[in-house]
Amino acid sequence: MKVYAEMNTPLRTIMTPGPVEVDPRVLRAMSNPILGQFDPAFTQMMNDTMEMLRELFQTKNQWAFPVDGTSRSGIEAVLTSVLEPGDKVLIPIYGRFGHLLTEIAERNEAEVHIIECKWGEVFDQQVIIDEMKRVKPKVLAIVHGETSTGCMQPIDEIGPACREQDVLCIVDAVASIGGTDLKVDEWQLDAVIGGTQKNLSVPSGMAPITYNDRIEKLISVRKKVERGVATEHDQVHVQHPIRSNYFDLTQLQDYWGPRRLNHHTEATSMIYALREGLRILLQEGLQERFARHRYHEKALMEGLKAMGLDLFNDVAWKLPMVTCINIPLGIDGESVRKMMLDQFGIEIASSFGPLQGKIWRIGTMGYSCRKENILFVLSALEAVLIRHGARIQIGKGLQAALDVYESATFEKKGRSY
Amino acid sequence: MKVYAEMNTPLRTIMTPGPVEVDPRVLRAMSNPILGQFDPAFTQMMNDTMEMLRELFQTKNQWAFPVDGTSRSGIEAVLTSVLEPGDKVLIPIYGRFGHLLTEIAERNEAEVHIIECKWGEVFDQQVIIDEMKRVKPKVLAIVHGETSTGCMQPIDEIGPACREQDVLCIVDAVASIGGTDLKVDEWQLDAVIGGTQKNLSVPSGMAPITYNDRIEKLISVRKKVERGVATEHDQVHVQHPIRSNYFDLTQLQDYWGPRRLNHHTEATSMIYALREGLRILLQEGLQERFARHRYHEKALMEGLKAMGLDLFNDVAWKLPMVTCINIPLGIDGESVRKMMLDQFGIEIASSFGPLQGKIWRIGTMGYSCRKENILFVLSALEAVLIRHGARIQIGKGLQAALDVYESATFEKKGRSY
Repeated sequence: MKVYAEMNTPLRTIMTPGPVEVDPRVLRAMSNPILGQFDPAFTQMMNDTMEMLRELFQTKNQWAFPVDGTSRSGIEAVLTSVLEPGDKVLIPIYGRFGHLLTEIAERNEAEVHIIECKWGEVFDQQVIIDEMKRVKPKVLAIVHGETSTGCMQPIDEIGPACREQDVLCIVDAVASIGGTDLKVDEWQLDAVIGGTQKNLSVPSGMAPITYNDRIEKLISVRKKVERGVATEHDQVHVQHPIRSNYFDLTQLQDYWGPRRLNHHTEATSMIYALREGLRILLQEGLQERFARHRYHEKALMEGLKAMGLDLFNDVAWKLPMVTCINIPLGIDGESVRKMMLDQFGIEIASSFGPLQGKIWRIGTMGYSCRKENILFVLSALEAVLIRHGARIQIGKGLQAALDVYESATFEKKGRSY
Repeated sequence: MKVYAEMNTPLRTIMTPGPVEVDPRVLRAMSNPILGQFDPAFTQMMNDTMEMLRELFQTKNQWAFPVDGTSRSGIEAVLTSVLEPGDKVLIPIYGRFGHLLTEIAERNEAEVHIIECKWGEVFDQQVIIDEMKRVKPKVLAIVHGETSTGCMQPIDEIGPACREQDVLCIVDAVASIGGTDLKVDEWQLDAVIGGTQKNLSVPSGMAPITYNDRIEKLISVRKKVERGVATEHDQVHVQHPIRSNYFDLTQLQDYWGPRRLNHHTEATSMIYALREGLRILLQEGLQERFARHRYHEKALMEGLKAMGLDLFNDVAWKLPMVTCINIPLGIDGESVRKMMLDQFGIEIASSFGPLQGKIWRIGTMGYSCRKENILFVLSALEAVLIRHGARIQIGKGLQAALDVYESATFEKKGRSY
């Protein structure tokens, strides 16, 4: 018999745009013994989670719960439940994850219309609104924060325009939720998908979503209950059922709602993690966390610029939690990343598609977004770049970051981030 | 600001057919700080997990990895990747989870043929084989262990018959994997889906699957790579793509295989849990765990019978890890379950469909399957039944179980279960 070694993982400083370091309190919550899925102590915890998710999404929607899967499972659950073959969808693309929306909509045989802009830019909202008026889609699906480019698409005017045109507005907020403002009700967004492994500092494996009664009404027509658990009042046949059982939001509603109809077996330990991550975030305060992200972003950006590096996304539409650096000419970006990991145990990211090999991406999200991490990544990057023969301003990066930290402190509830 | 209470869960004795108690070593593994998904230390852990899954499934298949979702996500991933609209599927149903297979196949617009037998019974394998020859399906999908009825369908002759008829044999082994023998290669099963929250004593949230090159070849025709990560050699359009992005096994292969093409962000902490659960299981030994399940099953059954209770599934085709009791006439089954939970902190299960209100189900799986749990559930059940006025043999249950335990010990590697 082969004996497998005990798990023995290295401890890393994770400065990517996700997954990021998990808050130690969340790790501890996961080591709690589990409960049965219908144990009243557990269903209470499910209800707590829904309540906290509503605060996270800044919504009064009844439905706010996680899908049991990674972030894209939430996107697919919403799109698959809403779309029927032939439905028109408009998708503005400004990075990798716009393509993901397209991909999922196409697999649902929707009629997909796209508009694209250069990676690194975002759309003027009016351009999207005009295109929507022209295409007249059933759904507008859009990414709020693109980690692939470090850009954030303003959507506060798009939601109301969708409502006016009776278009459903579905937003991928995986990267932005809990990191920067995302006002589901005020911006009139119909369905929003968040992520756990970024600003919530919870491991990947759950996809929190929320949607309003416009979506609920639409999907209720396609509702069908599994024959193994249906009662006589339930519809077991329906004309155009949702194509997925796992992602059927009407069934998830019956499981998360008061009926508690058995669907999947809820991923207990991940709910523990999500509940704890939400609790910690709300205890810190949404606005306080957003401000913290901005604070450390400033120190990081000042440090990088003082080092003489050129920022790819130093623009008005920058996503606060992702800072992208143009890889200096003649420098092998992957070799730098490898040395950062091998020598310092620090992980930073590369990018995709047209930006592959062109930029590095540094994430400052949730628990990873702390002073010691910012200072460590700056010092390591300087040393590694010197080792690679890059022409940089030596000794300037940390000084600039310390200037930021000394000019303003950010003490929050007894814990200095 | 509302302050949410810290998590503070009761400690339960979980004797249901899943989710069951998680091994404390697995809980500890989950509290480990996370790694990035492409960190070499993490991809090594993914490879370890695949290797151990092959041992669990008793297969040499290249593909053995978890889908990031609860057990049914694995079933849907396999069926959705394999089935195209109009494909014929034969599904023998002998409990709730046969209906689930039907439900998923129907949503994929397959032409579904079913044969049914009474809940509590299973099929003579020849009946299924004959029906298969008549229907000539592309796929035969069948449940190996039905937790809803506590029955296990023999499938050792069905696999070879499928191979002979060039039918793909897909098996839901969520309840049986790691609990009793399931020989993927020897029985010539083409795809098998396991569960984590039962015999592996890992929390719900991952669905380990395996499939052979017959399946791989079939799905490769529908392979399509996301435009956001595709290179020039990749197919981005295809005639009949797999209808789900999340469940597209060809994409999961590229992520779990040497190419490591970005798909979802692997659920790190759940991989830690799964890897540790598999390590513990293989350290105990597959056959040793199966024997342990049989050993405690015997003590439980003898105890229940001595108490004067009537077993629903005391049959040759009993699933060893689930023991079902006919609820005595005049006794309110739900009231008994509630008292077991409220007074003793013990969870046992009810059932579904035609068996709702008729039976209790006691699971003896993985870490929950230990002497102290068996003895505790017997003593609690006796006390609660007396409280409910049931006519039982008082004081006999524990004696019968102790007789079993004293007649044979089951000491395994320094740990007495």
